[in-house]
Amino acid sequence: MGDKLYFERAAIIGVGLIGGSLARAIKKKGLAGKVIGAGRSKENMEKALELGIIDEIATPEKSVENADIVFFCGPVLSIPKTLQKIAPRIKDGALVSDTGSTKMGIVNTGDRIAEDRFAFVGSHPIAGTEKSGAAASSDNLFEGHKCIITKTDSTPEEGIEKIKRLWEEIGMETVIMDPETHDRIMAAVSHLPHMVVYALVNVVSELEKEDDLLKFAAGGFRDFTRIASSPPEMWADIVLTNPVNVWELIGMVRDQLDQIESAIRARDQKRLKELFKNSNSFRNKLL
Amino acid sequence: MGDKLYFERAAIIGVGLIGGSLARAIKKKGLAGKVIGAGRSKENMEKALELGIIDEIATPEKSVENADIVFFCGPVLSIPKTLQKIAPRIKDGALVSDTGSTKMGIVNTGDRIAEDRFAFVGSHPIAGTEKSGAAASSDNLFEGHKCIITKTDSTPEEGIEKIKRLWEEIGMETVIMDPETHDRIMAAVSHLPHMVVYALVNVVSELEKEDDLLKFAAGGFRDFTRIASSPPEMWADIVLTNPVNVWELIGMVRDQLDQIESAIRARDQKRLKELFKNSNSFRNKLL
Repeated sequence: MGDKLYFERAAIIGVGLIGGSLARAIKKKGLAGKVIGAGRSKENMEKALELGIIDEIATPEKSVENADIVFFCGPVLSIPKTLQKIAPRIKDGALVSDTGSTKMGIVNTGDRIAEDRFAFVGSHPIAGTEKSGAAASSDNLFEGHKCIITKTDSTPEEGIEKIKRLWEEIGMETVIMDPETHDRIMAAVSHLPHMVVYALVNVVSELEKEDDLLKFAAGGFRDFTRIASSPPEMWADIVLTNPVNVWELIGMVRDQLDQIESAIRARDQKRLKELFKNSNSFRNKLL
Repeated sequence: MGDKLYFERAAIIGVGLIGGSLARAIKKKGLAGKVIGAGRSKENMEKALELGIIDEIATPEKSVENADIVFFCGPVLSIPKTLQKIAPRIKDGALVSDTGSTKMGIVNTGDRIAEDRFAFVGSHPIAGTEKSGAAASSDNLFEGHKCIITKTDSTPEEGIEKIKRLWEEIGMETVIMDPETHDRIMAAVSHLPHMVVYALVNVVSELEKEDDLLKFAAGGFRDFTRIASSPPEMWADIVLTNPVNVWELIGMVRDQLDQIESAIRARDQKRLKELFKNSNSFRNKLL
C-alpha cells in the first residue's frame, strides 16, 4: 500500500454516533495528528471533548482551516448547506468527504464546490445503531461493515484511493459506485423498509387504542419494528433527499399489498401461496 | 389447584413443530399416560415415533378413540374439516382443543359439533420458530410465552379450567377471550406484519434483478424480514381464515403509505417527522 496514510489535522463536522465513531477510529488507528470537532449542540461537543473523542472544539468555519481531511457527518439536509457556507475556508488540496445516507444531493454540491481546489469524495459507511450522540459512539462501529464510496466524472482518482484506504484501515469493506446507483440501492434495502415499518407501526398504534395489543406482540414483531426506533428527524431528511426513488418504491409496495388483498378477497389460496413463496425464497437467500 | 392434572390417553392430530412440542411437553410434565399421534406425512410420523415424541401412530379416526384429551395441531384450514369428520369417534366427555393461529372458524365448528357430548375449548399458544416438522419440536417451546384460550357462550367452564391448567403446567401464561377478539388482535400484531413483510420482500426481490442489493442489506433488513421465512402454505391458510380483519388492516397500511408518499411529494418535512414520531413513540413502549 506504499506510505502510511496520515493526516496532520482532521476536521469532523457533526460529532454524533457516526462522526464520533469515526473520530475514535481515526485516533485508534493513528491516522491523524489532531482531530478537530464542530457541532451544533454545545453539550454534546463538550461530552466529546471530555471523552477524548476529539482534541479540540471549533466552529465549522474554524475547524476546516488547515485541516488536511474534512468529514461532514451531520444530518443529510445540512451537509450541502454547511459545505457551501464554509467551502472558502477549506485548505487548498484538502480531501473532503461525508458520511450521509443519501448521496446525489451531497455529491452534486461537493463536485460543484470543490472545483479543482480541493477533492470531494462522498462516502456512506453502512453502520449504525438506534442510538445517537457522541457518547454512544465507539471505535469499532464500522468494523466488518460495508462502506460505499461515490465516484462521478469529477471525482479525482487520488481522492478516491485515499478515502478508500481510510475506511479500509478502520475495518470497512469498500465498494465504489455512482451516487445515483447508491441512492437507488439504499432506497430499496433501507429507506423503503423504514417507510413500511413506520406505516405498519402507525396502524398498530391506532388499533392499540381499542385492543390491548402490546402484550400479544411476539418476538417477531419486536424484531422487525426495531428500525421504527430510529430518529424521526434523521429519516425525514433521508427520504427528502431521495424522494423519487422512495415514492416509486412505496408505489410498488402498495401494488403488492393490492395483489395480496385481491387474492384474500377472492379466497385464492393458490395465488396467496405464490405471492408468499416468492418472498420466502428471496429471504432465504439472505441467510 | 386440587387434583393433579392427568389424562390416560392424549391424541395429537398433526405432529409438526407445535404438535410435536406439545406432545414432548405433556410427556415431560407427566400429564398423560400415553400420547397417540396422527398426521399426513408418514415420514414425519415415523420420525416422531423414533424420537419418542409420541408413543403410537394412528389414523386421526383411531387416535381419538378412548382419548381423554384431543388436540388438533394441523394447518388451520384442515382443523374444522378433520374435526367434523372424526367427531363421531370422539369419546363421550373428552376434552377437545386445538392450537390454530385463527380461532373464529375453528371454535365455531367446535362449538357446533361438540354439543353436550364432549367439551371443545380453542387454544392458541403464541410460540413458534420458522422451522417446521416433528424433528424441530422441543419440550420447552411454549415456556414463558402467552396462550390465548377462547371462551364462547357454549364453552363449558370445566373445560376452560382444565385447558388453562394444562397450558400453565407446560409454562405458558394464559389469557381468556372470545374468538372474535383473538382474531382481531392477531390480525394486528401477527397477520398484518406478515403481509407487509411479504409485500416488501417481493418488491426488493423484483428490484434485485437490476441491482445487486443483497450485499447491502444491513442487519436491520435481515431482522425484520425474518418472518418472511415462515411457511407460505401456513400463512395462506391463516389469512384465509381471518380475511376481513386482514384486508381491513391492509387498507389501513395503504392509507399510511399514501400519507407518507404525499408528505414526501409535498416536501413536507414537518408532516414526515410527525408521521415517523408517532411510530417511534409506540415502538419505544414495546421495550
